[in-house]
Amino acid sequence: MAEGTTRTLAVQRLEDFIASVLGALGLPESDAATCAVRMIESDLRGVDTHGIFRLPHYCQRIRAGGVNLRPKVRPVRENAVTALVDGDNAMGQVVMTYATQLAIEKAAEAGLAWVGTFNGNHAGCAAVYSTMPVAHDMVGMYMTVANGNHMPPWGGVERILGTNPISIAIPAGTEPPIALDIATTVAAAGKVKLAAQKGETMPIGWMIDRKGQPLTDPKRASEGFLLPIGGYKGYGLNVVIGMLAGVLNGAAFGRNVVDFTQDFATRNNSGHMVLAMRVDNFQPAHAFKREMDRVIREIRESERMEGVDRIWLPGEMEFYKIRERREKGIPVNPALMEQLRQLAKELQLPDRLE
Amino acid sequence: MAEGTTRTLAVQRLEDFIASVLGALGLPESDAATCAVRMIESDLRGVDTHGIFRLPHYCQRIRAGGVNLRPKVRPVRENAVTALVDGDNAMGQVVMTYATQLAIEKAAEAGLAWVGTFNGNHAGCAAVYSTMPVAHDMVGMYMTVANGNHMPPWGGVERILGTNPISIAIPAGTEPPIALDIATTVAAAGKVKLAAQKGETMPIGWMIDRKGQPLTDPKRASEGFLLPIGGYKGYGLNVVIGMLAGVLNGAAFGRNVVDFTQDFATRNNSGHMVLAMRVDNFQPAHAFKREMDRVIREIRESERMEGVDRIWLPGEMEFYKIRERREKGIPVNPALMEQLRQLAKELQLPDRLE
Repeated sequence: MAEGTTRTLAVQRLEDFIASVLGALGLPESDAATCAVRMIESDLRGVDTHGIFRLPHYCQRIRAGGVNLRPKVRPVRENAVTALVDGDNAMGQVVMTYATQLAIEKAAEAGLAWVGTFNGNHAGCAAVYSTMPVAHDMVGMYMTVANGNHMPPWGGVERILGTNPISIAIPAGTEPPIALDIATTVAAAGKVKLAAQKGETMPIGWMIDRKGQPLTDPKRASEGFLLPIGGYKGYGLNVVIGMLAGVLNGAAFGRNVVDFTQDFATRNNSGHMVLAMRVDNFQPAHAFKREMDRVIREIRESERMEGVDRIWLPGEMEFYKIRERREKGIPVNPALMEQLRQLAKELQLPDRLE
Repeated sequence: MAEGTTRTLAVQRLEDFIASVLGALGLPESDAATCAVRMIESDLRGVDTHGIFRLPHYCQRIRAGGVNLRPKVRPVRENAVTALVDGDNAMGQVVMTYATQLAIEKAAEAGLAWVGTFNGNHAGCAAVYSTMPVAHDMVGMYMTVANGNHMPPWGGVERILGTNPISIAIPAGTEPPIALDIATTVAAAGKVKLAAQKGETMPIGWMIDRKGQPLTDPKRASEGFLLPIGGYKGYGLNVVIGMLAGVLNGAAFGRNVVDFTQDFATRNNSGHMVLAMRVDNFQPAHAFKREMDRVIREIRESERMEGVDRIWLPGEMEFYKIRERREKGIPVNPALMEQLRQLAKELQLPDRLE
C-alpha cells in the first residue's frame, strides 16, 4: 500500500479529473462529463467503492476494448410508459443516465414508467439512479444484476448469483428524502476483502463454507460463499431482481454474467431497470411530503435502545454525507491517489493531482 | 387444544363453507364468494395462517362492526396507469381483488399499472395478489402494511413497524412461475407463538431483547422484538414498503396501525399496493417465458450442497402444494375444526362440517 495520508479534494476538481481521464481515453466530452458526475455522486453518498475508486478499473476496461466509446444508446422497444434501452455497450453511467431520464420524462407525462436496459455496464451506486426521480416529486426504484457472481442459490455451492441490489427512493418535505440502497447479500464482497486486509475475523452470518458451516476467516473466503439477507428470503429477492433487471431485458444473469474485475475485454451485457412514479397520482405532492415528514419524525423520535444515539432513516446518513463532502471535499486514500497520478501522467493531463 | 386428528376437506367444500358463513353474517353473495376463493388460495399455497384459519377472527371483526358489509369499493383518483382505490372498509380480499383486477385491466391497455388502496383490511397471503397478473403474461408486485406492529426501527425499542411483506411474481413457460412472498422480518409472529406452544427454543437471529441481546425463549417474546432480515437492510425495506403501501395511499403506517388481533371494532385503514406489467413490453411473451425456463433450470440444476436434495425457486414449493391440495384437499386441524363447527352451529348453516 502506498505511503502517505488521505487527501481531501474538492468535488469539482475530482469531476474535472475524471472527465479529463475519460476524455483522453476517447470518450466524447458529454459522456465523460456524465460519467464524472455520476461517479462523484457515489463518493458524495459515502459509497467510496463505487465512485472515483473505480476509475482505474474502468480505464483498464476501456483500454482492453471492453467498452464502446462511440455508442448509440437508444430505445429498441417503447411505448408511453415503458422502454427497452440498448446500451450499445456504453459506459454504465451513460446508459443509466439516459434510461433514468427517459423514465422521468415518461412518468412526467403518463404518471408512471418502467425502463429496462441491456448491453450496459457497471453504473456505480444504485441510489444515484433511484434518487434522480425524487427531484421531480417521483418515487424511484432501481434494480441491477451485479457484475460478478459471489453467491450460490439457497442450498447450492455454485456461484451463479451476484449481490444484486435494489434501491428505492421516496420524496419527503423538509426531511431528507428516503433512499434505501441494499445489496441482497449480508456483506458485500469488498467488506470481506477489507476484513482480510485488516486481519480481522468476520461475524457469523456473513459467509458459509461448502458444507454450510459458518466461515469467519476472511482469508478463506475463496472456500465459501456470501450469505443472502434473511436466508432463503434474500436468495429469492436476489433471483427476482436478476430476472427483472436481467432476463426481462435480454441482459446477463446467472452463468452468463461476466466477472468484470477478472475479464476486461468481454462485453458485460449488464442489465438494469428503473421505475419512476409521480406521487401526485395518489395525493397532492405537498400533502404527501408533509405526511412523509411526520412519519419520518415518528420513527426517528421513537424510543431508542440503551446506548443508541440516533435512529436513522434509509438514506439519511448519506444525505448528511453528501452535504459534508460537497462542502469539505472527498477523501482519496494514498493507494488510490497513486493510481490516479499514474493515470494523469500516462495521459499527460494538465491536472496531475500533485 | 381440541382432541382428534387433522381432517382433510375438499377445496370446493371449504370455499362453500366460508361463503356460507360470510353470507350468513351479511356479506353480499358475490363478496362472500370472492373472500372464500382468495382465502382458500392462501391454504392451497400452504400458507395455512392466512386462509380459512382466519375465518373465526374475520367473523369476530364483522360481528364487532369492524368491517363494512355493504361497501362501495371505488377509485377516488385515477388515470390510465394508476389508481387510488378507497376500500370503504370492505373485507380486504374484496378490496384487493378489485384493485388487482383494475391493475391488470390498466396494464393490459397501457402496458403497466400501479394501484394503491386505503381503507382496506387484512387480505391474506401476499402471493395470492402478486400472482394474479401472471396468468395474463404480466409481472405482478404486491406490498402491504401488516395489521399489527411487532418490530421497532433499527436501534429502537418501540414496536411501531409490522412484518410488512413484499411479493413479486414472474411468468415462466413450462416451469412453475416465480412467486416470491417474504415478510421483512426473519421470523413471523406466528412462528414465535408456535415455538412457545411446542416448548421449543428459537434460533439466534429471530428476536432480540430490549438491550439488543439474542432472545431465544419464545415464552419471553413479549420482552423482545422480531428482527428484520439482514439487520438495517430489512429495516429499511420494511419502512419503504410501509411508505409505498401505506403513506402514499393515505393508509395506516407506524403508530396509527391498529392491531387487528386485539381490537376488532376500529377501522384498520389497511394499505396495499399492486403493480402489473406486461412482459411483452420488453420481448415477446413466448421468448421471455422460454428464457425464464432456461434460467430456472440453470439455478435448480446447479451444484448442490452435500445433503441438500433439491434447490427450489421462489414459489416452486407452493406451486406443487397447490397441485397437491387441489387434488387431495386442505388439512384442517382439530382446534380450527372445532371453531368452524361452532360457527356453523351458531349460524345454522346447512353444512356443519360433521
